Amino acid sequence: MDDLKKRALDYHEFPKPGKLSVESSKPCATQDDLSLAYTPGVAVPVREINRDPSLAYKYTNKGNLVAVITDGTAVLGLGNMGPLASKPVMEGKAVLFKHFAGIDVFDIEVNAPTIEAFIETVVNIAPTFGGINLEDIAAPHCFRIENELRARLDIPVFHDDQHGTAVIVAAALSNALELQGKTLATAKIVFLGAGAAGCSCARLLKLMGATNITMVDKSGVLDTSRVDLHDNNRHLAVAPSAAKTLADVMPNADVFIGVSAANALSPELLKLMAPKPVVFALANPDPEILPSLAHAVRDDILMATGRSDFPNQVNNALCFPYLFRGALDAKAKQITDEMQIAAARALAALAREPVPEDVLAAYNLTSLSFGKDYIIPKPFDKRLLSRVSGAVADAARLQQSK
Amino acid sequence: MDDLKKRALDYHEFPKPGKLSVESSKPCATQDDLSLAYTPGVAVPVREINRDPSLAYKYTNKGNLVAVITDGTAVLGLGNMGPLASKPVMEGKAVLFKHFAGIDVFDIEVNAPTIEAFIETVVNIAPTFGGINLEDIAAPHCFRIENELRARLDIPVFHDDQHGTAVIVAAALSNALELQGKTLATAKIVFLGAGAAGCSCARLLKLMGATNITMVDKSGVLDTSRVDLHDNNRHLAVAPSAAKTLADVMPNADVFIGVSAANALSPELLKLMAPKPVVFALANPDPEILPSLAHAVRDDILMATGRSDFPNQVNNALCFPYLFRGALDAKAKQITDEMQIAAARALAALAREPVPEDVLAAYNLTSLSFGKDYIIPKPFDKRLLSRVSGAVADAARLQQSK
Repeated sequence: MDDLKKRALDYHEFPKPGKLSVESSKPCATQDDLSLAYTPGVAVPVREINRDPSLAYKYTNKGNLVAVITDGTAVLGLGNMGPLASKPVMEGKAVLFKHFAGIDVFDIEVNAPTIEAFIETVVNIAPTFGGINLEDIAAPHCFRIENELRARLDIPVFHDDQHGTAVIVAAALSNALELQGKTLATAKIVFLGAGAAGCSCARLLKLMGATNITMVDKSGVLDTSRVDLHDNNRHLAVAPSAAKTLADVMPNADVFIGVSAANALSPELLKLMAPKPVVFALANPDPEILPSLAHAVRDDILMATGRSDFPNQVNNALCFPYLFRGALDAKAKQITDEMQIAAARALAALAREPVPEDVLAAYNLTSLSFGKDYIIPKPFDKRLLSRVSGAVADAARLQQSK
Repeated sequence: MDDLKKRALDYHEFPKPGKLSVESSKPCATQDDLSLAYTPGVAVPVREINRDPSLAYKYTNKGNLVAVITDGTAVLGLGNMGPLASKPVMEGKAVLFKHFAGIDVFDIEVNAPTIEAFIETVVNIAPTFGGINLEDIAAPHCFRIENELRARLDIPVFHDDQHGTAVIVAAALSNALELQGKTLATAKIVFLGAGAAGCSCARLLKLMGATNITMVDKSGVLDTSRVDLHDNNRHLAVAPSAAKTLADVMPNADVFIGVSAANALSPELLKLMAPKPVVFALANPDPEILPSLAHAVRDDILMATGRSDFPNQVNNALCFPYLFRGALDAKAKQITDEMQIAAARALAALAREPVPEDVLAAYNLTSLSFGKDYIIPKPFDKRLLSRVSGAVADAARLQQSK
């Protein structure tokens, strides 16, 4: 067993199995304490909430409690591991929610016989929670699940694998384009991968002003002549043309965004891109092209990956804790496009500011400043909480006031 | 607003709403920590559990995690408050589980359109948990829910309102009968109230040797001529006779167990009981007869109630934390009758032992010893954890070895 494997298993097993502990947040040492926490005192908030349901946000954990819910069909890059085996990931997500944004999370692993049963299960347990983060659910059923839950529930529902990635890609890309002297409105953008993350990224970039996006998947360019399109990618398909493959569309591309598989971008295709290209090679753990190879091929590129050991990590932890913090703080009933765009803009803006000493220390760095190797904030930047959450809450309140 | 009401609301609201906090139980201060808690390290236990599902007990919280689940149809003595308003009670239950037995609890408030949908919902989320504590679900649908969940799930399922009360009543009654010079096998026992708790108490007492039990509800004595019986109380009905009312069956009763309503036992009926009777007046907050009144009527009775301000409180906190602790420790797949009887006997035995100083101090007492005013342990007795949980785990392991 190699070192990471042993350390990971030990971390999960000792001194007690698992990564979470549910603690009392109120005094419970004496009989008097317990007479408030439980009978007879607890009857008072019960009656109050029965009278006015909104008081659940005042007297219970609901308003700070998010469910991280999965069916285990698309766990990390491992595929369909099933609900039980996905539990370590969901507990890990809970750890990140608490660490970065003070949000309490119950991880819920659902083993439902059908998609309908999954949806009904989540709807039925929703009174417990102030928000729902869907996690590691495979496409295309993730789209239907999220859409139906958003329509039926009055609390925020967010599929992180789709939209969390989109927010960070949007933030990183807006800074990358500026550094390369390009604009979102005019850049020729090619996506390799048209699954949950790819479609959501493309959709958000269009909302933010992108006009020239071509999606490519295993069957080639998504154009409207294809018969295998569905509701979630049809609106991203281009008009049919002679360009059918990745090789056909890469010449003069300004941006390549890979959410596909290891080594899917060859040096030859990279050479065909426009001057000063942006390459986001987000496949994990092995990107579409390694930064070392890409930089050896051409020296005018700006790169990001999904890995923490290369510059510019597109890391979902930059988004979901703060997006939910802002949504919960504003008592938002949905996580809207406007809130996601506000998060992306706040992330981009923060990366342009000077980096404080404590952030440098957390990463053993002596200096770090806005540029090709620093286009998005670092996860351990404590300013994220106020900046991103604040922007999201402001956006939510602005919409509520309309 | 009276003092208790204000204190209870303040307790639930400040400094933060609710009573629970989900914390990381593992280090998560550095990037290295998070690389073990989440990607890439978390993939290792995911693969292990996918290979061998039993490893979920080694690498996740499952083995120490109980769901406290309700539909809010019978909240405390308040009736159908709905799932959302029941949340303070379920959070309170979580506080007790953690405080007394170190068990992590997710409270889940279910708003399902039908009983079938409730059952399916619980089945679907069951992979998350190591046990399920059903709470505050009204009769008669609580019976069907528990029976079906027990049959379909391979983790312990326990409806506390039924069986938790039964275990403590059985413990208290065995000591009470000994003190009054009677035996369970020969005592004439009358129940007033044949709902969830009453039926489960009677059932457990029969299993432990009681032979003469008469159940009485609002319609009178449960005898086999009645057409309103159901699966859960039919086996408790007696042969039809001239005795149709509580007044008909109280003469010469040795034991009265009330799980009904305030003031349901009149002094006149109390006078009709046999010498040295046992009276458990468990209606909350107002018992079937107040101890002060009962003792004024006759001085040979031994009483218990559900209240903490009278002697001999039948308090479910004496049972459910330790029953689940023992079941989880033994990795029991069900909570069996044998485990419940083991818990009752361990509780009864503990009350006969000398009371340690720390227990006396917790209750501001200078002395306390086995007798009419002390037939069951006090909730803050730390010996409960090892004694009751140990007895339950031993019983579970004995059954597993058969």
